[in-house]
Amino acid sequence: MSPPLVSLDLPDIWPPNFTSSDTPSMQKSFNERTAAVLDGKLVSMEIRSRIADEVSRMKKCIGKVPGLAVIVVGQRRDSQIYVRNKIKACEEAGIKSFVTELPTDCAEVDVCNALLRFNKDPSIHGILVQLPLPQHLNEEKVLDILSLEKDVDGFHPLNIGNLAMRGREPLFIPCTPKGCVELLIRSGVEIIGKKAVVIGRSNIVGLPTSLLLQRHHATVTIIHPLTDSPEKIASEADIVVSAAGVPNLVRGNWIKPGAVVIDVGTTPVEDPSCEDGYRLIGDVCYEEAEKVASVVTPVPGGVGPLTVAMLLSNTLDSAKRILDFN
Amino acid sequence: MSPPLVSLDLPDIWPPNFTSSDTPSMQKSFNERTAAVLDGKLVSMEIRSRIADEVSRMKKCIGKVPGLAVIVVGQRRDSQIYVRNKIKACEEAGIKSFVTELPTDCAEVDVCNALLRFNKDPSIHGILVQLPLPQHLNEEKVLDILSLEKDVDGFHPLNIGNLAMRGREPLFIPCTPKGCVELLIRSGVEIIGKKAVVIGRSNIVGLPTSLLLQRHHATVTIIHPLTDSPEKIASEADIVVSAAGVPNLVRGNWIKPGAVVIDVGTTPVEDPSCEDGYRLIGDVCYEEAEKVASVVTPVPGGVGPLTVAMLLSNTLDSAKRILDFN
Repeated sequence: MSPPLVSLDLPDIWPPNFTSSDTPSMQKSFNERTAAVLDGKLVSMEIRSRIADEVSRMKKCIGKVPGLAVIVVGQRRDSQIYVRNKIKACEEAGIKSFVTELPTDCAEVDVCNALLRFNKDPSIHGILVQLPLPQHLNEEKVLDILSLEKDVDGFHPLNIGNLAMRGREPLFIPCTPKGCVELLIRSGVEIIGKKAVVIGRSNIVGLPTSLLLQRHHATVTIIHPLTDSPEKIASEADIVVSAAGVPNLVRGNWIKPGAVVIDVGTTPVEDPSCEDGYRLIGDVCYEEAEKVASVVTPVPGGVGPLTVAMLLSNTLDSAKRILDFN
Repeated sequence: MSPPLVSLDLPDIWPPNFTSSDTPSMQKSFNERTAAVLDGKLVSMEIRSRIADEVSRMKKCIGKVPGLAVIVVGQRRDSQIYVRNKIKACEEAGIKSFVTELPTDCAEVDVCNALLRFNKDPSIHGILVQLPLPQHLNEEKVLDILSLEKDVDGFHPLNIGNLAMRGREPLFIPCTPKGCVELLIRSGVEIIGKKAVVIGRSNIVGLPTSLLLQRHHATVTIIHPLTDSPEKIASEADIVVSAAGVPNLVRGNWIKPGAVVIDVGTTPVEDPSCEDGYRLIGDVCYEEAEKVASVVTPVPGGVGPLTVAMLLSNTLDSAKRILDFN
């Protein structure tokens, strides 16, 4: 009887004039370079080393270590590589990891059963389902059975609700948004009172990043593919976080001089010269951004390593909570 | 080991230069008046009459009517009046209502017990706890035990999370935000692609309104007391929803010519000439706004009546869902 109020989801397709994977040709000279590079690798190594210390302290004190379970469905090359990196990072930090690999054409019940086993397993303190799942699986249904106490990705709607609401605390903050804000805080970037623009509104990055920046008292605007004149809105922001997944979307004219630019985009493009056969390209046209921004994160080596570090941090926090260890 | 990531809640106190309850002196002439008035009363009467029809159809078909339970603690005059209005609206629509009144100094367990009784009662399809609760009661703890299926106010964090996340549907949309968007839609205001500014970020109005406008594909910015130059940001918006609770916060220079302005503010001020001893003042300086905006909602008679209509609508929807009636 009323007009539909939340059933208007539209696919987020960025207009073609914004989607060019060519690096714009722009004269580059060393003199013009002004932006500092936020080295995510360095910050992440620091965090991971402290996590390793905590894990070994836990092992000494109570004879237990955190355990992370990963469920990966299918053979997506990027998923395989992400999972491999997460497992490697766990090993280095002393966190036990368990991987369940399921074939692309597995049934939903197989994924759910694997999840339920990990939910019950007391040696597992964090579970993540590597997204995206193959089309025939219902992501929402699968994620809904994941134990809230082990949802180290923080994607459960109750976690997102608690992140959104003032006065409440989510059990986990999603790893990439947490990594972005951690990077800002550790780099001495003031967030409170600043104008922040988040480009993209995915449940995994854009939305929780906007909510987290809001909790840090930024004045936040979310830009999405239906936004009118996004470059004008972005160019008024002190902090730009781009998570659109569109190579070179954010050109020089999208950036206010002196702004801080966090590039979360990681679009894989074929490159036989790279070890894995492809390389990752960010959303930000780096050559142009570095001439305008005060700080830019590179891709790769910016937010990516932080995401992995935050996953370890969430897993450690979860183990501490479950095992009542401080 | 990491800097605190969401524990930075600050009280939302608007700076004194914005908080004047005096109506600014400005020459007013009939000729200058341009804004259309969005009559919330009229729209709400329409909606309530359709709800009454549905309730009577339900009664005829299955012999049952929706039931709404209200818990009110203490003697706050505004709460008493709000509750009285809600009950009256229920009666007029044929919805059964139940009120539990508890003394200001009651224990948390008393509120929880009342809630638990309503949770179990099959004749109750919606429960609301009139906010704010007295200081000594933990609002979060109380609201957390309210049955999700009967949370017609939509304030449960799981509802808020599902409202925030693309592809998900909350069981209930909070009444005031739903009323604002309903008013916009029914008045033919296009939301998609428009710049919207929400002033205030309360869990009850500001936050869910911003999430709902976002779901309708507006480009949303939230202004709060720590926002720099809020008047500049507001004056770029096509749609302004003000829910700050600060009389006359939104002056003429906050509004873009032709913008649509929804005033959710309702600050009670003493007025012996009024029936209840006070009258409500909105956030928007109406005299100035009506000269700049294309559409303005009045206070009272704007969003307020819609909030009540949406509460009835949520209660009806809940009863239909629980009783499996279509």
